[in-house]
Amino acid sequence: MLAELKGLNEECGVFGVWGHTEAAQITYYGLHSLQHRGQEGAGIVTTNGEKLTGAKGLGLISEVFANGRLHDLSDGKSAIGHVRYATAGGGGYENVQPLLFNSHSGGLALAHNGNLVNATQLKHQLESQGSIFQTTSDTEVLAHLIRRSGYKDLKEAVKNALTMLKGAYAFLIMTENEMMVALDPNGLRPLSIGVLGDAYVVASETCAFDVVGARYERDVQPGELLIINDEGIHSERFSMNINRAICSMEYIYFSRPDSNIDGINVHTARKNLGKRLAVESEVDADVVTGVPDSSISAAIGFAELTGIPYELGLIKNRYVGRTFIQPSQSLREQGVKMKLSAVRGVVEGKRVVMVDDSIVRGTTSRRIVNMLREAGATEVHVRISSPPIANPCFYGIDTSTHEELIASNHSVEEIRQIIGADSLAFLSVEGLLEGIGRPYEGELKGQCLACFTGRYPTEIYADTVMPHEKA
Amino acid sequence: MLAELKGLNEECGVFGVWGHTEAAQITYYGLHSLQHRGQEGAGIVTTNGEKLTGAKGLGLISEVFANGRLHDLSDGKSAIGHVRYATAGGGGYENVQPLLFNSHSGGLALAHNGNLVNATQLKHQLESQGSIFQTTSDTEVLAHLIRRSGYKDLKEAVKNALTMLKGAYAFLIMTENEMMVALDPNGLRPLSIGVLGDAYVVASETCAFDVVGARYERDVQPGELLIINDEGIHSERFSMNINRAICSMEYIYFSRPDSNIDGINVHTARKNLGKRLAVESEVDADVVTGVPDSSISAAIGFAELTGIPYELGLIKNRYVGRTFIQPSQSLREQGVKMKLSAVRGVVEGKRVVMVDDSIVRGTTSRRIVNMLREAGATEVHVRISSPPIANPCFYGIDTSTHEELIASNHSVEEIRQIIGADSLAFLSVEGLLEGIGRPYEGELKGQCLACFTGRYPTEIYADTVMPHEKA
Amino acid sequence: MLAELKGLNEECGVFGVWGHTEAAQITYYGLHSLQHRGQEGAGIVTTNGEKLTGAKGLGLISEVFANGRLHDLSDGKSAIGHVRYATAGGGGYENVQPLLFNSHSGGLALAHNGNLVNATQLKHQLESQGSIFQTTSDTEVLAHLIRRSGYKDLKEAVKNALTMLKGAYAFLIMTENEMMVALDPNGLRPLSIGVLGDAYVVASETCAFDVVGARYERDVQPGELLIINDEGIHSERFSMNINRAICSMEYIYFSRPDSNIDGINVHTARKNLGKRLAVESEVDADVVTGVPDSSISAAIGFAELTGIPYELGLIKNRYVGRTFIQPSQSLREQGVKMKLSAVRGVVEGKRVVMVDDSIVRGTTSRRIVNMLREAGATEVHVRISSPPIANPCFYGIDTSTHEELIASNHSVEEIRQIIGADSLAFLSVEGLLEGIGRPYEGELKGQCLACFTGRYPTEIYADTVMPHEKA
Amino acid sequence: MLAELKGLNEECGVFGVWGHTEAAQITYYGLHSLQHRGQEGAGIVTTNGEKLTGAKGLGLISEVFANGRLHDLSDGKSAIGHVRYATAGGGGYENVQPLLFNSHSGGLALAHNGNLVNATQLKHQLESQGSIFQTTSDTEVLAHLIRRSGYKDLKEAVKNALTMLKGAYAFLIMTENEMMVALDPNGLRPLSIGVLGDAYVVASETCAFDVVGARYERDVQPGELLIINDEGIHSERFSMNINRAICSMEYIYFSRPDSNIDGINVHTARKNLGKRLAVESEVDADVVTGVPDSSISAAIGFAELTGIPYELGLIKNRYVGRTFIQPSQSLREQGVKMKLSAVRGVVEGKRVVMVDDSIVRGTTSRRIVNMLREAGATEVHVRISSPPIANPCFYGIDTSTHEELIASNHSVEEIRQIIGADSLAFLSVEGLLEGIGRPYEGELKGQCLACFTGRYPTEIYADTVMPHEKA
Repeated sequence: MLAELKGLNEECGVFGVWGHTEAAQITYYGLHSLQHRGQEGAGIVTTNGEKLTGAKGLGLISEVFANGRLHDLSDGKSAIGHVRYATAGGGGYENVQPLLFNSHSGGLALAHNGNLVNATQLKHQLESQGSIFQTTSDTEVLAHLIRRSGYKDLKEAVKNALTMLKGAYAFLIMTENEMMVALDPNGLRPLSIGVLGDAYVVASETCAFDVVGARYERDVQPGELLIINDEGIHSERFSMNINRAICSMEYIYFSRPDSNIDGINVHTARKNLGKRLAVESEVDADVVTGVPDSSISAAIGFAELTGIPYELGLIKNRYVGRTFIQPSQSLREQGVKMKLSAVRGVVEGKRVVMVDDSIVRGTTSRRIVNMLREAGATEVHVRISSPPIANPCFYGIDTSTHEELIASNHSVEEIRQIIGADSLAFLSVEGLLEGIGRPYEGELKGQCLACFTGRYPTEIYADTVMPHEKA
Repeated sequence: MLAELKGLNEECGVFGVWGHTEAAQITYYGLHSLQHRGQEGAGIVTTNGEKLTGAKGLGLISEVFANGRLHDLSDGKSAIGHVRYATAGGGGYENVQPLLFNSHSGGLALAHNGNLVNATQLKHQLESQGSIFQTTSDTEVLAHLIRRSGYKDLKEAVKNALTMLKGAYAFLIMTENEMMVALDPNGLRPLSIGVLGDAYVVASETCAFDVVGARYERDVQPGELLIINDEGIHSERFSMNINRAICSMEYIYFSRPDSNIDGINVHTARKNLGKRLAVESEVDADVVTGVPDSSISAAIGFAELTGIPYELGLIKNRYVGRTFIQPSQSLREQGVKMKLSAVRGVVEGKRVVMVDDSIVRGTTSRRIVNMLREAGATEVHVRISSPPIANPCFYGIDTSTHEELIASNHSVEEIRQIIGADSLAFLSVEGLLEGIGRPYEGELKGQCLACFTGRYPTEIYADTVMPHEKA
Repeated sequence: MLAELKGLNEECGVFGVWGHTEAAQITYYGLHSLQHRGQEGAGIVTTNGEKLTGAKGLGLISEVFANGRLHDLSDGKSAIGHVRYATAGGGGYENVQPLLFNSHSGGLALAHNGNLVNATQLKHQLESQGSIFQTTSDTEVLAHLIRRSGYKDLKEAVKNALTMLKGAYAFLIMTENEMMVALDPNGLRPLSIGVLGDAYVVASETCAFDVVGARYERDVQPGELLIINDEGIHSERFSMNINRAICSMEYIYFSRPDSNIDGINVHTARKNLGKRLAVESEVDADVVTGVPDSSISAAIGFAELTGIPYELGLIKNRYVGRTFIQPSQSLREQGVKMKLSAVRGVVEGKRVVMVDDSIVRGTTSRRIVNMLREAGATEVHVRISSPPIANPCFYGIDTSTHEELIASNHSVEEIRQIIGADSLAFLSVEGLLEGIGRPYEGELKGQCLACFTGRYPTEIYADTVMPHEKA
Repeated sequence: MLAELKGLNEECGVFGVWGHTEAAQITYYGLHSLQHRGQEGAGIVTTNGEKLTGAKGLGLISEVFANGRLHDLSDGKSAIGHVRYATAGGGGYENVQPLLFNSHSGGLALAHNGNLVNATQLKHQLESQGSIFQTTSDTEVLAHLIRRSGYKDLKEAVKNALTMLKGAYAFLIMTENEMMVALDPNGLRPLSIGVLGDAYVVASETCAFDVVGARYERDVQPGELLIINDEGIHSERFSMNINRAICSMEYIYFSRPDSNIDGINVHTARKNLGKRLAVESEVDADVVTGVPDSSISAAIGFAELTGIPYELGLIKNRYVGRTFIQPSQSLREQGVKMKLSAVRGVVEGKRVVMVDDSIVRGTTSRRIVNMLREAGATEVHVRISSPPIANPCFYGIDTSTHEELIASNHSVEEIRQIIGADSLAFLSVEGLLEGIGRPYEGELKGQCLACFTGRYPTEIYADTVMPHEKA
């Protein structure tokens, strides 16, 4: 929702379960808890040991599986599922995952969270060899690599194929009788495994485990390939070149506050970022307010450390759905708002600290600052619980190009003027690392900071396609 | 949403605008901001000075007016609209408001928030005289009373009809060339007027004014009848028996936190209730958490006063829509959750204060306490920011019968045991009155406390129909 | 379908069943066979002896009762239903029948086929007495008259009310424990009763009896009121002024060919009209073709009598549904057709007799003649199996005003020129009467010929509303 | 529609246009006229010279392109389209055609009518070489063969691929700048070309030309490959082994009566079949009736030759849509009918000749005979305007297996007893050939008679998949 305001969109979320009599249902609830990672489409593929069966569609998981379609999957004992993020353009049914490929020698289903930086090159090579692609999704590349590998043994075929991929990926791969789980050597996207009775579960975020009643076991490791079947679970490494670089934005913005990444709770991390932010850039003010929903935790942390009361200075309208009619330009100029409104009763006559988690293009921040002033705030101090985003992401987050990123072309003071704030401060990179507090060694503590620093953990190619360029 | 969990449902919300070239659009956005007051149906009637035109339907306002239906109303220069709450049963298109009655002598449109306690009697009398009712809505009663009054002058007909009604009502009445606004002599439901350029606006809550860019003028007074037309606005009293008794639950639970009622901001009132609650029943604990969304303000107040950190211990899933499939009993027993989940990373090993705004049947509270314990809370102390609800409401809130209200049959200690909390405390009636802090004279400070005390501000009849019994 | 081409639309069809364990289902199939009489909306009301339950909606009967809604009516043991014709304008849910009125003294459901010529007057009178109308349907007038009659006994109330109505009506009226069936004193619309095991059935056309497996008993008589309940069936007269005047267009155009009216099969009547037409205006030609669907029977009769072979010279496209996109003007000029096309392989180089059942505005005829010529017909002779329609209908058929009726303002020769035919002939009024061959005494043989002759069987008022003017 | 009754379903219809500013619209109307060849799904792909754009979906063409989707294709100057037949099973979006494959070297779209008898073998070979199939359609086989051919030149690649296919196919293939049209060496399915101003059109049936205002040019020849681009049209042969064998059922049952195949009008052919049938097996009777819609022409021919009057003895209900509720077994036993009913007024007391075009399983014939008897027919003589279908079709018609075909296991006399007719006669193979009257040399006159004689014009393999086995 707010993501739309910002133009910061996650690629997707994946969920899998092996060995549960209600596999499809479990996957439905698991995906439902990951719905914030993608609202464009959703799908589930199950296996009953003999055959893969799938159902997918555009829309929310509850929309896709309305009308009894979940029942068609009910004899599956294992399943993988996927939620896909909202692109601007329409269409896209083909790209909804899991992709399901049946052949005379058996089926193959794939669900993917991430973005491959060499997908274009691999696709061209494969097409030159006669492969036909039916989707614009880079996920299909892995399927072709597996089928063409020449290896009889699926595990070898998969390992061989994975070594050819570069970029960010958390893959769930399923055949009639096994599930494979793979994470890229940088571990850019989160992926965890858990246990639910006798069954294994895998999910992009641990909140899915809580929702389905599973117990968290551990995070999947960078460069790890897990093979799960009726015999149990088996782990292998498919890469020697391991270098953990979990996406920082997962902590800052994307993941649900009730998820843990590498053992660190996301809400707690955000609250700590708010506290660090308060230490780095305190301000004399009357109230602290956060931009709902993702900045609430940081705002509470900011308030707690400074002693300035936390208030609901901004309210989000929960009922902005797909069919909502946007106000005309003339109505907008007359002051018609939607999605977000400032609470006059709270901010009128007050000096307000407005905590937000990030600034992408700056337009949303300017609008909110303006809204607060119109509601009577005498001062608006903007505090951002992350460093300036000055570089595009190639790993599955739909930020923007350099041109569109306000921090790529403007100083903090310029941004302050543009958004019309009385003061503006971003969290420092050091503050970010310490606030999250990962115990990992090294300068970056196993985090990807590329969007802040421009130092990408993988090679980037001239033809690397960013998510929003696909459609 | 959470309302469904509790079985506490508001009847509706009304919005009107007189004299604006984009009257239907303004009403659309106004109603959108009142959507929390009713999600079953919505409608708008406009007048272009010659003819009333209406459109309505089941579903959210954005669903009802999808597909260009708003355009059909675009030549109206004034409009009234309505959002209706979700009943358990289906059907109900007829009952969606505004009701629109055309006759050879002109049209009449009505939108109503509230509940009449003598609707059954009036309806029987009218039917015995040959009237035919097409809805089960008590709103239609007023239309018949007006049409049968014998007065040539509409204002006199309306005033005469209003004197026959007993109970709670905030009415918007519109003909081709005027709008009337009436509030019952107890002012049980909120209703305010504002100004938008040259136009007048009326709304159930002031948040609608902020959303459409209007300026709040004042609350409509109990027993007041406003007549708005192209000449301006004119106020009359239709009752001598005025006794303000605004519904306390509007402050506690229903209204949006960014609304003001009689000049008091709802979020601020809730935060103060949380502080009073902390004073009345402090507890030694590690974290304070609120049940989203309506109890967040009170929880923050509780935390602020006690110094115990406020945390996001409970997370609500935003994507529980109409088509969501409820988990089977067996999955629920295995721990599959939806709507709400506890944040393990926040509550594990902690003594938790769980602040909620009310307890109706107790089932939801028990479920949440249990959820917190499963997520590792060592103690769960439940604090309710209102007194026990021991009596049904007859004024438009769909609580329940005496039998279903847990506080009607159990002591606080019994409730504590039933919900499984380590401790439980409700706010006192005095705490409630002082927390809200209305400056009104008298013991009750102009509030209705009937659901807590059983002292109803109007007569109640044996055949008074509660909202949930209609459908 | 073709009706739309012509602007000749039937008002509706009614069906009822008393005393069958699957009353709603029987009514569903009965209405389905009457679907040609109305495609805008459909509804069914059932009684289980204690309560009336209804469901209705816009669209075809199969659309309205998709999604299991029929099941909601499954405990009814008796039912009435209605299909409503397609108006140009949208909206109209309120007007879909049966109308259902519940009151504290019991329910009342009404289904109506026809048009009252004094509805406006009655409505104004009732409104002046305080009645409120919620529909623009004249059916509601009867409900008000019944409720206001003052008679305790429903039968007396109904009889009294019926005497106040003027115009065409076939009414089904149902309460919790009886069904009443009434036909206007002129018997303008068809209505028959049948027997299905122990149950009674009533329908606008006898084809409905064949479809549900019922046995035809007899036609309801003009001015007759039937009372059907668990004791059996009972007949009364409510008018002394009986003068049968069944609508001739039912034979010519509206009714299904497999229906019988007063014992005469519609297909056979049409075929005879075709034969009479051939006798009256034979022509030297190579092939006879009919405009599908309603003119096929007459064309076959024409061919049989003349010996000219009957061929499929015109084909109707069956798949022109609601969402069909009409060709743009430019495409239409390039020759893009829809709905109907001429069969080149049949008409090329031939002299064609094109038999149609009527001409309303002439535009359709012109288009078809042109189509046949473009497909290579060397001559096109148009033969119409009814006299020229020169007067509007006030009894439930949506023809048009005098201005729009081509035969109201033009001679046959002028019409021939306008439609571009080589020759044109209409059937004479005598030919019509003899072709149908009703055994009734008198000049008109119990038929209404008003649209041909202008002699209306009832009074007509200045403010009589024609069906297409309502909406 | 009736096809469903019989279990005789056509695979599909194709339409293409090259060089028209409203290419997508033209294709829409063309496909609309071919809708009888397939109702499950429809799609259109256009090219604007630079890019292929497609839209497709489940349902009728008017449903798929509701909501403005046709507009998305409006800048195309050429297009191909497809309608697909209704399979029993659901799903199948992927299989809706045209299939569209984009790659870095350009796009490829394919639309196919027919059935390949060696698709399974080709698919296994391709999968073993690493190809991934995303549909179960045999159409995709051609795409893979083209992409893997190794030829740089598309025409060579296509010709090479076509030589590997066996069975029935009419293919439309489109890239950004040319369209190819291919018909199998036996010419089993109909395919014609026409001219529309400066544009070329291709269609499964000539009725599409009439609908879009195009002029018929000629039928595509067996083994012919047409290449159409902005330079014009160019014809090549890709096979030396030409042997015309047009499907006889196209004349008898599938094609629209207004289409011509090899210059012979389908309605005229059917009428002649009816006459031949009358000559071969005349009968003393009172009325002739045809089973609508496809047998009407034959029935008229039968009546014309014998002088027995042709009557509408059977009526089809036009409103049996997707959501129609089938009557329960108990209602069916009570006589509830749908789809088809007998006209009592026509058949009662009469000796009836019922002309039908074919018998597949016999269940429909038995039901109709029974219906006629219940409606009072004293004798029912069944006359079939084709020989007994005793062998399955492998070329794109969804008949059935040997086991299900009643004529495969029973003599004519046995069939007569099963369907309960007083007499039964089929047309002879010689009567069929002479009735259609193709001027071609040879015993079979260029027709496929395999379903009657078992002599298939191509090889058949053990694993040949019949259409109904796919999905």
